[in-house]
Amino acid sequence: MDQPAIGDVIGELLKDAYAIRTGIGPRPLAGGRVPRPVIEIIERDDGLINGAPADQYLGEPDEWQPHDHRALRLVRGAVLDIGVGAGRIALELQRRGTAVTGLDISAGAIEIARRRGLRDTVRCTVDEYARATVRYDTFLLLGNNLGLLEGRERAPAFLAALAALARPGARIIAHGTDPYGTTDPVHVAYHQRNREHGRLGGQLRLRLRYRLLATDWFDYLVCSVDELESLLVGTGWRLISIDDADRPYYLAVMELTG
Amino acid sequence: MDQPAIGDVIGELLKDAYAIRTGIGPRPLAGGRVPRPVIEIIERDDGLINGAPADQYLGEPDEWQPHDHRALRLVRGAVLDIGVGAGRIALELQRRGTAVTGLDISAGAIEIARRRGLRDTVRCTVDEYARATVRYDTFLLLGNNLGLLEGRERAPAFLAALAALARPGARIIAHGTDPYGTTDPVHVAYHQRNREHGRLGGQLRLRLRYRLLATDWFDYLVCSVDELESLLVGTGWRLISIDDADRPYYLAVMELTG
Repeated sequence: MDQPAIGDVIGELLKDAYAIRTGIGPRPLAGGRVPRPVIEIIERDDGLINGAPADQYLGEPDEWQPHDHRALRLVRGAVLDIGVGAGRIALELQRRGTAVTGLDISAGAIEIARRRGLRDTVRCTVDEYARATVRYDTFLLLGNNLGLLEGRERAPAFLAALAALARPGARIIAHGTDPYGTTDPVHVAYHQRNREHGRLGGQLRLRLRYRLLATDWFDYLVCSVDELESLLVGTGWRLISIDDADRPYYLAVMELTG
Repeated sequence: MDQPAIGDVIGELLKDAYAIRTGIGPRPLAGGRVPRPVIEIIERDDGLINGAPADQYLGEPDEWQPHDHRALRLVRGAVLDIGVGAGRIALELQRRGTAVTGLDISAGAIEIARRRGLRDTVRCTVDEYARATVRYDTFLLLGNNLGLLEGRERAPAFLAALAALARPGARIIAHGTDPYGTTDPVHVAYHQRNREHGRLGGQLRLRLRYRLLATDWFDYLVCSVDELESLLVGTGWRLISIDDADRPYYLAVMELTG
């Protein structure tokens, strides 16, 4: 079998999902007339494969999960939405008059977010952006993007980049998922195997695929609140609240001290 | 990355899709509370990957495509439903009092079809079943299962097996898709590459994946009506009608002559 090419998976699938939702732009042709949903394919390094409808990335506020609404009530000041995607959250903040910048590494995601009306966007990593002089009061890691901490190796640098971009007393509002409530033997075995390799149990090694494209393999962290607290030690960020009303999902608020 | 294990992909995904649709049986745990659709993953040998919601295999008649309803109006006598899956079509025929046998190679599919109430099932290939003494008046290849002809090499043996199972004047009612109307460069290039390898343009080389399982690679034919006619030459089966009201989909009726 031919190997998929490395490319902007998220960008391409957001473009197609946007075209299908709005009727604007060329829609993917699935060989037939019956509309088919755009599916994001997620491969894990144990061979597990899952598909998830990409349309959720374009959800209007009335389609959101309850914790997304509660997250926005915690926002204050100037906001950096990290992994902005198609701008689902940032567009709603902008509508409410909040100063918000959308950051993403995907060129296609930024293109769609801008086409949907998001005015302030930046395409780079948080590390690259940390060299800029702009400062923020709130950092959003929604849509499970606490995962961007990756694991013990990456988390300190990621959190340092946010600290460099932070005004005094700035907050991170992050959506995470506690992975350890499952009894699914596939996941339990995966957590065990990760620990045997010195990784956090829910330190997923993933790649995304869409049509002929794949991402490189990357780490994405699904961690418990205890694990999150241990990752914060020595970073200047302090956990100040957890909202786990939608368990196993949670909203973590972290504040920059000192 | 670990390679997926070879297993009953269709059976496992039908079991999960059935559990989600009905609430009966253990549902797959996706790590969270938000219900997620069961997605069938289809890999093609050029690296193309697609996902399709598996719930369509459980559709009630009011969820069907129009050509499925028209197909059932063409049925007469005793029916063999080939690739019966979860029994979507066969169960409706049984409700109408038609004698129908559901055939599938997937043990999990047969288990779900029986759990849904299908009484007459057989788990084997058509070649294996052709050694039985039972005879049919109608063979159904719906849900795009004209694809089971595979290509020029397999089609004669497949059609001979159906002829061996046929009463005089028996018919095949098959749902196919003409692949050549697309302008998608990914598909156009794939058709060209197939022809360069002596295959029919739409002779797809696929494998299915679900969670940790994969099928072996297999051929699945998407062909034009002209290509279908050329495959029938010398088989005893003759094309007697085409209904292409839902182009690019079509219903082909073939009759056993002599």
